[in-house]
Amino acid sequence: MEKELKIAVIGGGSSYTPELIEGFIKRAKELPVKTLYLVDIETGKEKLEIIYQLTKRMIAKTGLDIEVYKTLDRREAIKDADFVITQIRVGGLKARAMDERIPLKYGVIGQETTGPGGFAKALRTIPVLLGICKDIEALAPEAWLINFTNPVSIVTEMIHRYSTVKTIGLCNVPISMINNVAKIYDIDSSRVRIDFVGLNHMVYGKKVYIDGEDATAEVLKGLVEGKSMNMKNIKDLNWDAGFISALGMLPCPYHRYFYLRDEMLEEEIKALEEKGSRAEQVMKLEESLFKLYQDPNLDRKPKELEERGGAYYSDAAVSLVSAIYNDKGEIHTVNILNKGGTPDLSEDVVLETNAMIYRSGAKALSAGRLPETVKGLIQAVKAYEVLTVEAGISGNYNTAIMALLANPLVPSYKVAKDILDDIIAANTKYLPQFSKDKNTARGE
Amino acid sequence: MEKELKIAVIGGGSSYTPELIEGFIKRAKELPVKTLYLVDIETGKEKLEIIYQLTKRMIAKTGLDIEVYKTLDRREAIKDADFVITQIRVGGLKARAMDERIPLKYGVIGQETTGPGGFAKALRTIPVLLGICKDIEALAPEAWLINFTNPVSIVTEMIHRYSTVKTIGLCNVPISMINNVAKIYDIDSSRVRIDFVGLNHMVYGKKVYIDGEDATAEVLKGLVEGKSMNMKNIKDLNWDAGFISALGMLPCPYHRYFYLRDEMLEEEIKALEEKGSRAEQVMKLEESLFKLYQDPNLDRKPKELEERGGAYYSDAAVSLVSAIYNDKGEIHTVNILNKGGTPDLSEDVVLETNAMIYRSGAKALSAGRLPETVKGLIQAVKAYEVLTVEAGISGNYNTAIMALLANPLVPSYKVAKDILDDIIAANTKYLPQFSKDKNTARGE
Amino acid sequence: MEKELKIAVIGGGSSYTPELIEGFIKRAKELPVKTLYLVDIETGKEKLEIIYQLTKRMIAKTGLDIEVYKTLDRREAIKDADFVITQIRVGGLKARAMDERIPLKYGVIGQETTGPGGFAKALRTIPVLLGICKDIEALAPEAWLINFTNPVSIVTEMIHRYSTVKTIGLCNVPISMINNVAKIYDIDSSRVRIDFVGLNHMVYGKKVYIDGEDATAEVLKGLVEGKSMNMKNIKDLNWDAGFISALGMLPCPYHRYFYLRDEMLEEEIKALEEKGSRAEQVMKLEESLFKLYQDPNLDRKPKELEERGGAYYSDAAVSLVSAIYNDKGEIHTVNILNKGGTPDLSEDVVLETNAMIYRSGAKALSAGRLPETVKGLIQAVKAYEVLTVEAGISGNYNTAIMALLANPLVPSYKVAKDILDDIIAANTKYLPQFSKDKNTARGE
Amino acid sequence: MEKELKIAVIGGGSSYTPELIEGFIKRAKELPVKTLYLVDIETGKEKLEIIYQLTKRMIAKTGLDIEVYKTLDRREAIKDADFVITQIRVGGLKARAMDERIPLKYGVIGQETTGPGGFAKALRTIPVLLGICKDIEALAPEAWLINFTNPVSIVTEMIHRYSTVKTIGLCNVPISMINNVAKIYDIDSSRVRIDFVGLNHMVYGKKVYIDGEDATAEVLKGLVEGKSMNMKNIKDLNWDAGFISALGMLPCPYHRYFYLRDEMLEEEIKALEEKGSRAEQVMKLEESLFKLYQDPNLDRKPKELEERGGAYYSDAAVSLVSAIYNDKGEIHTVNILNKGGTPDLSEDVVLETNAMIYRSGAKALSAGRLPETVKGLIQAVKAYEVLTVEAGISGNYNTAIMALLANPLVPSYKVAKDILDDIIAANTKYLPQFSKDKNTARGE
Repeated sequence: MEKELKIAVIGGGSSYTPELIEGFIKRAKELPVKTLYLVDIETGKEKLEIIYQLTKRMIAKTGLDIEVYKTLDRREAIKDADFVITQIRVGGLKARAMDERIPLKYGVIGQETTGPGGFAKALRTIPVLLGICKDIEALAPEAWLINFTNPVSIVTEMIHRYSTVKTIGLCNVPISMINNVAKIYDIDSSRVRIDFVGLNHMVYGKKVYIDGEDATAEVLKGLVEGKSMNMKNIKDLNWDAGFISALGMLPCPYHRYFYLRDEMLEEEIKALEEKGSRAEQVMKLEESLFKLYQDPNLDRKPKELEERGGAYYSDAAVSLVSAIYNDKGEIHTVNILNKGGTPDLSEDVVLETNAMIYRSGAKALSAGRLPETVKGLIQAVKAYEVLTVEAGISGNYNTAIMALLANPLVPSYKVAKDILDDIIAANTKYLPQFSKDKNTARGE
Repeated sequence: MEKELKIAVIGGGSSYTPELIEGFIKRAKELPVKTLYLVDIETGKEKLEIIYQLTKRMIAKTGLDIEVYKTLDRREAIKDADFVITQIRVGGLKARAMDERIPLKYGVIGQETTGPGGFAKALRTIPVLLGICKDIEALAPEAWLINFTNPVSIVTEMIHRYSTVKTIGLCNVPISMINNVAKIYDIDSSRVRIDFVGLNHMVYGKKVYIDGEDATAEVLKGLVEGKSMNMKNIKDLNWDAGFISALGMLPCPYHRYFYLRDEMLEEEIKALEEKGSRAEQVMKLEESLFKLYQDPNLDRKPKELEERGGAYYSDAAVSLVSAIYNDKGEIHTVNILNKGGTPDLSEDVVLETNAMIYRSGAKALSAGRLPETVKGLIQAVKAYEVLTVEAGISGNYNTAIMALLANPLVPSYKVAKDILDDIIAANTKYLPQFSKDKNTARGE
Repeated sequence: MEKELKIAVIGGGSSYTPELIEGFIKRAKELPVKTLYLVDIETGKEKLEIIYQLTKRMIAKTGLDIEVYKTLDRREAIKDADFVITQIRVGGLKARAMDERIPLKYGVIGQETTGPGGFAKALRTIPVLLGICKDIEALAPEAWLINFTNPVSIVTEMIHRYSTVKTIGLCNVPISMINNVAKIYDIDSSRVRIDFVGLNHMVYGKKVYIDGEDATAEVLKGLVEGKSMNMKNIKDLNWDAGFISALGMLPCPYHRYFYLRDEMLEEEIKALEEKGSRAEQVMKLEESLFKLYQDPNLDRKPKELEERGGAYYSDAAVSLVSAIYNDKGEIHTVNILNKGGTPDLSEDVVLETNAMIYRSGAKALSAGRLPETVKGLIQAVKAYEVLTVEAGISGNYNTAIMALLANPLVPSYKVAKDILDDIIAANTKYLPQFSKDKNTARGE
Repeated sequence: MEKELKIAVIGGGSSYTPELIEGFIKRAKELPVKTLYLVDIETGKEKLEIIYQLTKRMIAKTGLDIEVYKTLDRREAIKDADFVITQIRVGGLKARAMDERIPLKYGVIGQETTGPGGFAKALRTIPVLLGICKDIEALAPEAWLINFTNPVSIVTEMIHRYSTVKTIGLCNVPISMINNVAKIYDIDSSRVRIDFVGLNHMVYGKKVYIDGEDATAEVLKGLVEGKSMNMKNIKDLNWDAGFISALGMLPCPYHRYFYLRDEMLEEEIKALEEKGSRAEQVMKLEESLFKLYQDPNLDRKPKELEERGGAYYSDAAVSLVSAIYNDKGEIHTVNILNKGGTPDLSEDVVLETNAMIYRSGAKALSAGRLPETVKGLIQAVKAYEVLTVEAGISGNYNTAIMALLANPLVPSYKVAKDILDDIIAANTKYLPQFSKDKNTARGE
């Protein structure tokens, strides 16, 4: 392997980074990383330093020859990079806490990726990610941007619309679903295959195969019997047998926000009262994680990180980087352009789909028609996502209203407007595109 | 005009019929009707007799040579008919009352065409309408079926999927919207043109033209200023200026159920307490109408009928019949197959669209892409409609659940199941397709 | 009628202009033309003067108050125009003669709109029309461009791709087909309706209706029995009964070049030997026409003009202008964007279709799926047209080769290359986009 | 491997069979074949016996436990088969000779798969293959039908339209193209990947990758420099550098019939005079092959078979069977339904595309838009194929005429009719669907 790779991790000070590092270490034989840049912003300086030191210890332990850098200058990191990985959280956990609380005030699901919470996050994230893309266009036009930044669907959609950067959006939900099926059967996950269809956090397992045989019915039965399939960050409400039988497909954990809306809302309200928002819980978790990370004897990813909700992150991320670099022709479930894969969505929108990963990029397996039972929901959510991209770029108040109204979780104009006004008020410094003078006619 | 037409009105005992008769009388010069059959079922026998007598008086007064017949044998009426008009209400107003009450019990909009109420109505109507279609296929294969029976979108969709009958679905909403614009401006409605896009009771006026000039912005302003655009049967909540500005199109009155969901629900609950369901109000109205109709001196449509909510009915219905018969090449807003008119819906689904009406049928004006702001909602509602057709034909419990869940007004699986179970229990005799033995595995 | 119209005719010195003038005179009551600009280029100065004088005499005779201007400055004519009509022939009849001769040299149909002849004409025309469009964008952005310039399909396609000008492409073939049907039946053409489908000079009459009744079979019978349907400029070879029966639709006269390829080629070769190319015949015709036009006593369109091949021109052109101006909502057969009218072609390509004409533009009647029997040919020709636009704009030699190869009349790469090289050599001064230095790698 | 497979080879007496047997032997470890049925018809009895004996010797030599049967009763072979492989030639080489000679008589390419020759072959093959499908539906509904029978595109299209049998159409062209690229570079073919797009015998290599890097330009250069890429049965005319540069993709050998039409026609005529039709040459080759096969000492596929034109057959066929059986998730280039893989063809047509092969079937990689330069030709040929299927099923003379006219190689109606009449006359006993009484109105 003559080539030596430069990797830039934007949001390098994230508590997730050790898992990413572990991923690179695990695949050192197939991924000749030469330099690894951890980038963060001024307010994340301290965390960046902690992660930087931990990373150095982790790598030192392995004896690998990888140079690690930390920087607040993202352009330095991006310049000539082969892969840029984005795992940023604009506004930090404080902003997330608002994303979760504002909708609840109006009786609407408050979640950081789905519904109005994810909408607020998208509005904050779009300008920043667009800036990163412009830097990549200028400084590393051949680089691949692997985007984990949520809401992945909307962010990847935005990149495809407003940048020429080569990008793949990635999430740990599909791989978690595969691993959960493997766990139920106590088999290796390589024996499980799922025909995924849908969007990020709105993805269905149309068919589940074990060793090539259709095992969908059996897996659904297991799901109902409490062989739960969930993620750390979503309340583990059991699926109803009747619902799963009617759906006939494997839902993803986030589908609870749509199909168990009332129950999830109730849970959220209760949880908020009892232990604060999820963001607030995570803040505490992060605090203790970073305390752990500072331990000068720690030279591996601590087990506690898995509590954080990002399991299989390293598998998903670094294995994708490796599949690209090594032209593996492996199947990954990724967020890429539809390009006619399903005629039920426009050709130019992003969907989450199985795709073959090559050095030249991802080639989607043709999804065909969406199942009639979920077509409408997928189309509605995709319309919401596209409108959110447009609102996030333009800062147009009316587009933002129509985006929120297009989200199935938002019940009425009045609620949409109240939530939007709260979001704008609470995020002033992160939403330059929505500055007052740009929206004189916002019906105020 | 050598040809003499046979018209069959299924549901001839309806209180709406006098308006239809008025329509035929008004157009007697262009529509050479020879025989007019009024058909009803056993339980409607008495009303049929009243309408039959009134019809005879109305025609006698004009001196027209139209033979009027009444019958309980629908096949006699359909045989060799040129036009069959269906205006039936399976289960009558009593069933409608249940359609309106059941959803409210679970905090969901209870309306007879939109949401779970319309869903119940569709399940009852589909088997009956399919039977009528089979009769037409056998006895009058060249006849046109003009369908007013609600929910028009779903019923017309069903006919296209399960019958070869030539049909056009019709509703008075588009013509009401045109007439309301005309009223605001105090001009003749022929000077108003609207580019309609969407589905029945989910149709938008994309552009409004007056004398060929785009007047959309001005009309929307008028709408907001309370120059209300509504129908007798929908609570006249004013549209919010901010919403109309964000939408940028003319909504139809039924859109209130989606965009003003909370407010409409509140109104419905309040109205139910104060004056009973809309069905119950209509029952009283009908009673007094039929009392009026029995007056042997009455020989014209009484003004009171307009209170009933079916204004412009005659314009829409008979003018469509005349446009077909006379190959007029006029624009009507009708429910017909998409056939690629908009690539954002499948080719084989029914949409409400402007179309040229010829003797050979309706030719849609190509709608092009749906506006991004309403695309998701239209697609979601269409998916609900298609699933409802399939549930209504098959009586499959799971399909029915997924249909309800696909309706944006239904918030969760639990609610969907509760409502569905109530609907089935309350409509046993009208839902043979849902008989218990067919659905052993309904998760009970 | 308060508004007074300014009309600019680019190519005003054309021998066709008197018919256009006649059209405006005939519709003076509905079209309040105030000023009429006839524009031509330096080399057409003399003809322009003749037409200008004739036009003035024609108008003077009617007593209408229309100011007529002639100019070589097209920007003066375009400024603030309401309608711009283009009827230019870049390179004149001399270039047309080459278009007809070059392909014949290689055993390929030589025709000025279809095949390589039309291709050469398109390459010459595209830069000029694009220039006109840029002037309209700058000087009369609200003007309608009515384009008659051949090949209409390609030119209109180009305008939609490279300009924002509002345009409709028009041809006299569809109206000729309607008039010919009317002639066969000896009825008024208003009683004939044809469902047109396809592209310009590649349009089929899918169904023919007389007084609303499907008369297709009968009309096809008439067609076969020699009740010929042709145009002055296409050799009147009879259609074979077997072919018409297999096609089951009304072909347009230009379809002979595809379905009777051998016979038409033979005819062309024979005609070339006997009387020179069609261009050369037309030159003589034009000469005598212009002699006629100079007669100071002539104050109407001379009958001889009909020999020229442009019958129904005035009907098609001025009646379209009037339909737009008066928001008539009439059906015209025009060249406009597909926009999903048929899913068998891309949404963004131009097709020839029935459309409703309003002041706000043309709204296509949804064409639905193309008939399977002609779908492939229509798609192949459309692909050729799109490639020709791209070649005509870019001057890319390879694109030009692939465009020619995509034309079903071109049998092989060798022939395509020979013809292309001849076309470029013979049209040097009209093809700046193909200048040598731009195409160093053209395989020479 | 507990399961033991039953394989039925329809057309088992073909000279190709030894390669197939070799394929099964090579993969014995992964494909547990228990019984192998060789089926042929009465007239092929003698050849079947020879192949049967050779097969037994080949297997005996390996010591594998595979039971070989021969039968004239195809239902016996199909019953409970796991895989049915069809490699039949209805009418034998004699019919092929006619397919090649008839078109040449009218100056049209005479080739057994492309153009009117392939059309005749399709008409003969469709009824027989349909019969086989009906047998599979009844006797082995879970079996996979691997179809090699030419024209593969049309035959596979027919099966998808008129049968429920699970089928994949296969051809050795794509694998030959991959192997030829490998040969040019002297590398293992596993390092070559081609993005195929198009139809069978009309497939393009859009991009060629070597070790994941785009090597298209270099490979095209090699192709032009005579590093020929051809098949034994197609005259090895060199591609022109200019053409390849304009095309910018890897053509398949059969593209010569379209892009080098004149030259190929000339070659065919010359070859016919000098050595008879290709069929006649193959007859001699076959004769000597079968002489070889009879040698009781021969117990392996003789090298001479490769001269026959079917190289890589075994790789393509048995490796596909193994990929299905073993749920390999490998990429194969196969003929399957479009299902929206490219929006430029209908969803329900067959195309040749890269697909992942699983036990549950083939999943196409989404092809996206067809390259503009070849879109028209692919669409035209697909339209021809669909019409041919319809003609082959219905025996409708008019549909057959329109099918031939839709083929880009057929220049005119007259030629189409002459060829069709000759085909019908020469194939009477193979075309029951075209019997006279079914087509009284064929324009004779």
